[in-house]
Amino acid sequence: MAKIAHVSPLAPASFPDLPLIGGVRFASAAAGVRYSGRTDVMLAVLQPGTAVAGVFTRSATRSAPVLDCQEKLGDAADGPAAILVNSGNSNAFTGHYGQASVAEITAAVAGATGVPARRVFTASTGVIGEPLPHERIVAKLEELNDALTDSAIEDAARAIMTTDTFPKGASATVEIAGTPVRIAGIAKGSGMIAPDMATMLVYIFTDAAYDQTALQALLGRLTDKTFNCITVDSDTSTSDSLMLAATGTAGVDATGNAEFETALHGVMLDLAQQVVRDGEGATKFVEIRVTGAASDTDAKVHGLAIANSPLVKTAIAGEDPNWGRVVMAVGKSGAAADRDRLTIRFGDILVAENGWVSPDYKEADAAGYMKGQELVIAVDLGLGAGQATVWTCDLTHGYIEINADYRS
Amino acid sequence: MAKIAHVSPLAPASFPDLPLIGGVRFASAAAGVRYSGRTDVMLAVLQPGTAVAGVFTRSATRSAPVLDCQEKLGDAADGPAAILVNSGNSNAFTGHYGQASVAEITAAVAGATGVPARRVFTASTGVIGEPLPHERIVAKLEELNDALTDSAIEDAARAIMTTDTFPKGASATVEIAGTPVRIAGIAKGSGMIAPDMATMLVYIFTDAAYDQTALQALLGRLTDKTFNCITVDSDTSTSDSLMLAATGTAGVDATGNAEFETALHGVMLDLAQQVVRDGEGATKFVEIRVTGAASDTDAKVHGLAIANSPLVKTAIAGEDPNWGRVVMAVGKSGAAADRDRLTIRFGDILVAENGWVSPDYKEADAAGYMKGQELVIAVDLGLGAGQATVWTCDLTHGYIEINADYRS
Repeated sequence: MAKIAHVSPLAPASFPDLPLIGGVRFASAAAGVRYSGRTDVMLAVLQPGTAVAGVFTRSATRSAPVLDCQEKLGDAADGPAAILVNSGNSNAFTGHYGQASVAEITAAVAGATGVPARRVFTASTGVIGEPLPHERIVAKLEELNDALTDSAIEDAARAIMTTDTFPKGASATVEIAGTPVRIAGIAKGSGMIAPDMATMLVYIFTDAAYDQTALQALLGRLTDKTFNCITVDSDTSTSDSLMLAATGTAGVDATGNAEFETALHGVMLDLAQQVVRDGEGATKFVEIRVTGAASDTDAKVHGLAIANSPLVKTAIAGEDPNWGRVVMAVGKSGAAADRDRLTIRFGDILVAENGWVSPDYKEADAAGYMKGQELVIAVDLGLGAGQATVWTCDLTHGYIEINADYRS
Repeated sequence: MAKIAHVSPLAPASFPDLPLIGGVRFASAAAGVRYSGRTDVMLAVLQPGTAVAGVFTRSATRSAPVLDCQEKLGDAADGPAAILVNSGNSNAFTGHYGQASVAEITAAVAGATGVPARRVFTASTGVIGEPLPHERIVAKLEELNDALTDSAIEDAARAIMTTDTFPKGASATVEIAGTPVRIAGIAKGSGMIAPDMATMLVYIFTDAAYDQTALQALLGRLTDKTFNCITVDSDTSTSDSLMLAATGTAGVDATGNAEFETALHGVMLDLAQQVVRDGEGATKFVEIRVTGAASDTDAKVHGLAIANSPLVKTAIAGEDPNWGRVVMAVGKSGAAADRDRLTIRFGDILVAENGWVSPDYKEADAAGYMKGQELVIAVDLGLGAGQATVWTCDLTHGYIEINADYRS
């Protein structure tokens, strides 16, 4: 595995101060699953009655923990719940052995914490296809249970990192009927691209109460506008997991509250963008804004075609305002487009319109713009009201270095 | 534009000896469209009655010459026909100016050669979005017409190169009812990936006679098994064009002949694989064989998901037998797969079966295999009889170097 010593140039200055969320306690430990000298397991225990929602990778080869979580989700929110995550090994493509590992870990979490096994959710992230040494995790569970505290969310964020160059956290506080409710989340991921690693894990907690069925619907809706709008290299992990837990300790029910939805959307978008900012080899953070498409779905198809195009991504890495490649990506996406109605802007610079380069376009201006670290590429299809925004990073030598190196 | 001095390490030793095809004459010239010191225009003139078929990019932003060819194809095979191709400028996303350029060139070809304008097919390959200096091409047409000869197909192959590192040709001869018929073709393309360049052009000629409607159907069918089964970087050109002309001078009709179809298939596959072998930055030629899929369509979806995965391609570049990434690509493809029925082989080495690594697998063996220049990755889904084979190359620093460099 390649070691990249540097923190991403796109990283935030520091881990944010996250508010305490009542009803959830964290602990982390160094179990030696694969890494040495760092923590690699986190445990979160949620108080009785906490509503739990989750969305997971749709990969046909998804991991044993993902299959287990999907089977359990949707049970009534009775009793306490727990989340146990390890880094260093994804327990994916490990056959029946992988399922047995999940069962062993789940039973150990239940035994140590008193949480019913049906309410224990696990995740594993790391190398694919190697048996998970679950006994190393099991051996740490009493220690983890004894260490649980409500102030250890940043340590949890660090324990789930694989090739991430920085831990990722975000939060929001909103008032509902005069009562403050808090949202705090953590994520790991360098896009889909960590060498040998399965990738994105996200855990978000709120002290608001929320109907569990409605929470699941809310999470799905907001995922489509946040985590499903980012891409680093178009590769999809076997382990992607996003869970949201509502403990209710704030004493107010947020079900259906619009301000809560907006705040949660903000937290999810912040975490999603931090994943892009930690994209392997990334030197530029790029927002692709698509408007005027025949539908929102078409707009997202165009946006992802641009964001995933190796030619667009290498042009951005080279600070080349190569708008012809944007035209190419729109053309190949399969969604509706009319060459002669297409408008392209780099930042505020009008590049192309009416099926040709804009008469006022000066390449020197666009070349100057491309030297920035945060870029906006805006495409208007001129066909309808459909719109979408997606986020990506550039494709650099760093990506090749990290991913072409032999595992050792 | 980056200059890569080297010929691809995967190139054939030399341009093949191609048989003369009666009824087609070639000429090339240096018109200075963009390059200096080399030819950049080729003209082929086909004798009266030649059947002409073509398949083209499905890009929604396809070039003006592509739109013109698509509009003309299917007319009765009366009178002579001509093909005029320039490199250096793709005449794509050039609005109404681009259509006017096609009309100017078409009229000039018709004037110089006597071919009806409706039977003049043009193509342009090179930078997107810049006006084509068509007057430079028009100025060369008398010279081109005077130089036409049946023995200049290799010069034609060189004139249509952009960032190709070698000219591409292939041929076959078969007997039909005791009469030999010949097929010879040329291609240009480095995948979809030449910097600022639109990419793949293919011209194939035979002296067999062939019903034009049947020829079009044959070409489409064989394209699905050849040029539509290669990928370098998943990006689709605005100019891809493939034309097949049957002059009939051999005095035998090959319509529906199975041996002719097999021979043509071989020529097309050879040219398609040469395009992959010239993929930008390529150091490995990779065949992905998918069997046991629920359908042939599913098999191709899986094959292309593997072939287009940046993680698979960088692992190949690093000579890493990282079969977990093949599992990942199968899982994300969207086509049917069952983790526990999947079998993966690198060459003859059984890597994974029954949802887990094979008990006999030794990574050292696979690591040795990956050092080869020609690799086969075989995936059996264990679900049905669907199969497909696709071809690709690795993703290396060379790709980034070529495509991230600023246009100049």
